[in-house]
Amino acid sequence: MITQPMEIETRSFEIIAPYLEKLNLREDEKKIYSRIIHAAGDVEYAPIIKISATAIDAAKAAILRGANIFTDVEMVRTGINKRALKKFGGEVFCKVADDEVKNFAAQKKITRSMAAMRIFGENLNGAVVAIGNAPTALFEVLRLVKEENISPAVIIGVPVGFVGAADSKAELFAQDKIPFITVEGTKGGSPIAVAAVNAILYLLDNSRE
Amino acid sequence: MITQPMEIETRSFEIIAPYLEKLNLREDEKKIYSRIIHAAGDVEYAPIIKISATAIDAAKAAILRGANIFTDVEMVRTGINKRALKKFGGEVFCKVADDEVKNFAAQKKITRSMAAMRIFGENLNGAVVAIGNAPTALFEVLRLVKEENISPAVIIGVPVGFVGAADSKAELFAQDKIPFITVEGTKGGSPIAVAAVNAILYLLDNSRE
Repeated sequence: MITQPMEIETRSFEIIAPYLEKLNLREDEKKIYSRIIHAAGDVEYAPIIKISATAIDAAKAAILRGANIFTDVEMVRTGINKRALKKFGGEVFCKVADDEVKNFAAQKKITRSMAAMRIFGENLNGAVVAIGNAPTALFEVLRLVKEENISPAVIIGVPVGFVGAADSKAELFAQDKIPFITVEGTKGGSPIAVAAVNAILYLLDNSRE
Repeated sequence: MITQPMEIETRSFEIIAPYLEKLNLREDEKKIYSRIIHAAGDVEYAPIIKISATAIDAAKAAILRGANIFTDVEMVRTGINKRALKKFGGEVFCKVADDEVKNFAAQKKITRSMAAMRIFGENLNGAVVAIGNAPTALFEVLRLVKEENISPAVIIGVPVGFVGAADSKAELFAQDKIPFITVEGTKGGSPIAVAAVNAILYLLDNSRE
C-alpha cells in the first residue's frame, strides 16, 4: 500500500500517461487531463476533455493577477486548493446556499445555481468560473456573456447529468468569446471542476504540502 | 431548459431507469443506483455498484437512531444533506484538515485520511462511514474492523483512482462483517459517496426544499 500522497499521485499519473499518448497534448494540457482522469478514476475521459487554445494561459494569467474563482456549488468551492489560490490574492466564492439567492430563485422560478450566477453578474468579469454540477448555472453564464457582455477570463464548465448538461457544454464549446475547459456528454461533476482548477494552480505553484 | 430541481431529478431518473431494468433491484436499491448514476452522469455505473443484502436497512436504522456520519474528505462532508440528517439527530464529521490529524500522519508516515480514520476509532461503532476519495482511509477502516473490533453500522466505500482504490473496494466487498455499499474498479469519488448517503436520507425523509 502506498501511503505518501505525492507518490500516489505520481504513480497514478504514470498509469494514466499511455491513455494520453495519441492525443498530441502540450505538457500543461497533460497535467489537466491527468488530474481530471485521476479524479474520476476513469480513463474514458481522455477523448472527451476539451480545452480551448488559450484557456490554460488565460486561467494562469487571471490567477496570477489575483482573480477570484466563482463556483456553482459548495462541493466545488470545498475542493479547490484555497491556500494555493490565496498566494496570488484570489478567493473562491459560492452563493448557492445564500438566502438572497434562495429568495431570488423562488421569485424568478429558476434554479438556485442559476440565480447565484446572475447575482454574481459583473463580478465574473476577468474571473475564473468553475461549474461542476448545474447545467442551468452554465447556461446562465453563457447568457450573461452573450446578452450582458459579461466576460470571465475562463469558464471551466463541467456540469454533470442527463438533463441539460451535455447541451450546456456543447453551447460552451460552440462559442469562441470566452476560453474554456469542458467535457463532452453527460459526464462531469464537482471533482472534475476541482481537478481542472487545482491542476492550473499547481502549474503556477507546485509547492504543496 | 428545465429549471425546477425536482423536475430535473425526476426526468434524470426516468432516463436512468432502463439501464437498471435487467439488474432485478428492489425499489430502495433503485433509488441508490439512480442517484449514483445521476451524480456521475455515467450509466456504466449500473453493473458495478454493489450493495450488500442488509446495507440499506442497516444504514436507515443507524440514521433513525441518530448515528453520525464519518467522512474521509471535506467534499463528502460538504455534499451530504446535513439538514436532512439533523432531523434524526446525526451530524457529519471529517477530520482530514485538522492539525491533530496532520501531525499524527506525519509522525506515523501515513496519509491524513488514514490518520483521521484511526483517530475516529471507537466513534465509528454503530456509525455510517462514507469514504469517497482515499483508498488508504478505506483500508484503515477495514483494519480497524478486523484488528480492533470496530463495528460501523455500514461502510459506504467508494474511493477513486488507479492506486489502491480498486483493491480497497475489493477488500470491502470480500468481507462479511460490515454491511456495505461500494463500486467495483477504479471509478468512485466524493459525489458517489454523497449520492449514496443522500439517497438513504431521502428514503427516510423526502421532504426536501
